[in-house]
Amino acid sequence: MAHVSMVTFGVDDLERATNFYLAMGWERSDVSVPGTVAFLRGGAIVLGLYGRDDLARDAGVEIVDRAGSAGVALAMNVDSEGAVDRALRDADAAGGTVTRPAARADWGGYSGYFADPDGHLWEVAHNPGFTLLEDGCLLLPGDGRRP
Amino acid sequence: MAHVSMVTFGVDDLERATNFYLAMGWERSDVSVPGTVAFLRGGAIVLGLYGRDDLARDAGVEIVDRAGSAGVALAMNVDSEGAVDRALRDADAAGGTVTRPAARADWGGYSGYFADPDGHLWEVAHNPGFTLLEDGCLLLPGDGRRP
Repeated sequence: MAHVSMVTFGVDDLERATNFYLAMGWERSDVSVPGTVAFLRGGAIVLGLYGRDDLARDAGVEIVDRAGSAGVALAMNVDSEGAVDRALRDADAAGGTVTRPAARADWGGYSGYFADPDGHLWEVAHNPGFTLLEDGCLLLPGDGRRP
Repeated sequence: MAHVSMVTFGVDDLERATNFYLAMGWERSDVSVPGTVAFLRGGAIVLGLYGRDDLARDAGVEIVDRAGSAGVALAMNVDSEGAVDRALRDADAAGGTVTRPAARADWGGYSGYFADPDGHLWEVAHNPGFTLLEDGCLLLPGDGRRP
């Protein structure tokens, strides 16, 4: 079945990246290997942090250094507009950068974006048309998944 | 609670990207807006496909054109080595590129990587030390989540 089990970010400084996500409320798994790779649990997914060069080598690709962003954004849906504001404040306090302050969206919700210390993008969104399950999973209208 | 609800890929050709993921077994949600955005359900997560420029504008960032990859890899964990091989064959048949053929890994499993038509990286992995839940969620040893 099509699915995502883990998202791995290539990072320049593993300790800095790990500390950022710990400050954002993620939990480090014991299978992490200090200095090499961190596995962080958050809801239904595992977030992996891995040296940018290690990831490139493992994947058999070249990873470019970039001034802009990478064309990938993760989203964290939350259950209120206040929770969007709080998450963006937390990201800023933890060393991230708010790239687009929270605002009403034309799709009826409220969202903003931050970049983590390595430039990886996160949207924080409240969408009153989507149901949020207890484990953080997002239920789309008419979705096969059930609450 | 820390979590990921959705992963959005910025893409150059929304129809091409959507067809690739449909061929890989994802299901398109009715909330998709043809020509603008596609939402695909796979297990516990929603995969969003959105024009690269639209994503950049929405996020308030510049997204660079790149020859190499972006420093983000998604992983799809599967329950056998044969399933790894099948997923890589499917990706190739659907228009993706296998960037690193499947091989035994020093962490005891078996994995390979492919890039989708826009260059977004996926690892397909079988890790006998990790438990795979029915919804595609990955259970790490000692994890707070339970099967």
